[in-house]
Amino acid sequence: MKLIQSRDNPTFKHLRALVEESRYRREQGRTVLDGAHLIKAASAAGVVFHRVVVTAKAMRQQEVQRIVEGGLPSRCELLEVSETLLRQISPVDTPAGIAAEIEIPRHSPVNVCGDVLMLEAVQDAGNLGTLLRTAAAAGVGRVVLSAQCAQAWSPKVLRAGMGGHFALHITEGADLTGELSTWQGPVLATALTIDAVDLYATDLRAPAVWLFGSEGQGLSAAMLQRATQRVRIPMPGGTESLNVAAAAAVCLFEQLRQRRI
Amino acid sequence: MKLIQSRDNPTFKHLRALVEESRYRREQGRTVLDGAHLIKAASAAGVVFHRVVVTAKAMRQQEVQRIVEGGLPSRCELLEVSETLLRQISPVDTPAGIAAEIEIPRHSPVNVCGDVLMLEAVQDAGNLGTLLRTAAAAGVGRVVLSAQCAQAWSPKVLRAGMGGHFALHITEGADLTGELSTWQGPVLATALTIDAVDLYATDLRAPAVWLFGSEGQGLSAAMLQRATQRVRIPMPGGTESLNVAAAAAVCLFEQLRQRRI
Repeated sequence: MKLIQSRDNPTFKHLRALVEESRYRREQGRTVLDGAHLIKAASAAGVVFHRVVVTAKAMRQQEVQRIVEGGLPSRCELLEVSETLLRQISPVDTPAGIAAEIEIPRHSPVNVCGDVLMLEAVQDAGNLGTLLRTAAAAGVGRVVLSAQCAQAWSPKVLRAGMGGHFALHITEGADLTGELSTWQGPVLATALTIDAVDLYATDLRAPAVWLFGSEGQGLSAAMLQRATQRVRIPMPGGTESLNVAAAAAVCLFEQLRQRRI
Repeated sequence: MKLIQSRDNPTFKHLRALVEESRYRREQGRTVLDGAHLIKAASAAGVVFHRVVVTAKAMRQQEVQRIVEGGLPSRCELLEVSETLLRQISPVDTPAGIAAEIEIPRHSPVNVCGDVLMLEAVQDAGNLGTLLRTAAAAGVGRVVLSAQCAQAWSPKVLRAGMGGHFALHITEGADLTGELSTWQGPVLATALTIDAVDLYATDLRAPAVWLFGSEGQGLSAAMLQRATQRVRIPMPGGTESLNVAAAAAVCLFEQLRQRRI
């Protein structure tokens, strides 16, 4: 197994650019996964792997060994890197010791069907990752992100997504209004407006588009107008706000509950 | 209004220590709030303010003016600081230009009654803040944190809590087992074990203690054993995981829904 020790190594510089530069990721159509959990999820989803890098220390862990020895596709390069170098391409303070360069999955365009989560200007990486993880768990198949959202395939968002990415069809940089123009079903948004209906009094059984906006501002007026139904999450505690990912979890799982009855 | 320009000013050093050092916060029993939203929430809750610091630029904002001119308690000191200094005591990259030093609210010990959210080793500041915000919104009155949790009153957790802190009775550094020993009602925990009952098939109407554990590990075996009922959130999407704050939002709002019928 080839060993990289220098930060001037071209492959290492390429990996670090993928981690640090959203533009380079977009140009290359590739990203870096950190840790065994994400790598296993991507592998199970049939994602194309270009290379896996490990530290000597991590190679002594059974979970890492199993990935390296059992699960790597034939064309995937395997490299050893020093701990210091691995730390520089990991989004966390205590890296797992294994990372992988993958092709960002490009699904062929599909018609909008089933449920869709549309996000406008969600810029916090942790929130975006949590939203993707929640959508995947709730069985929402498609997520559409406006150009103002954080990059879905950045290492930080991947980390918060915990593998949810690989169960979703994710469209980035989308014109949300355009996407909605071909959609015939309900378009739902949470709101505090007078016309908003209590979430639990709303029939959520039909396939729907859910709109959620940025943390600070919420949905733009233009998008809120596109909602065919505004819903209000009742909050008896006196505060009138939820984190956007918490609000989405409440809505998507209430929809799930109604469909199971 | 007194102006602080030097980072060697004793008051400024005190503020920075409150922001940066959890131990100093604990010793002093005080913390720092960043931004008008948190300051207004604390003020409305009757929290004791020691001082408010503003930049000259922020003083031109109507919202900040209204706080400074209308709402400050009589014993609260008002200081002007330079932009550079304010940035050093703000948890965000683009500070709001106003911060306040407050007394961490110390509620007198109350018996456990109503709903309680118990958190074991939740170390991520964003997750902890979101959990507090969700609990406050759902009307859960009390939150109990194990010693391994992040500090609830740190600037980062306060920021993610968005004022939820001030609607809650928060106990930190608690012995969760001890707290549970006097509790007669249901103790609920999410789990993937065989004996876990579907969340939506569980009667959640009685006042309950909800247990949630750390992101990576979940609840310890010891705490999971203390649950009188293990519940499973159905996840048709094929992934078997939710962010802890998303999971808590789903559970606490399902409880709310059941009680409203």
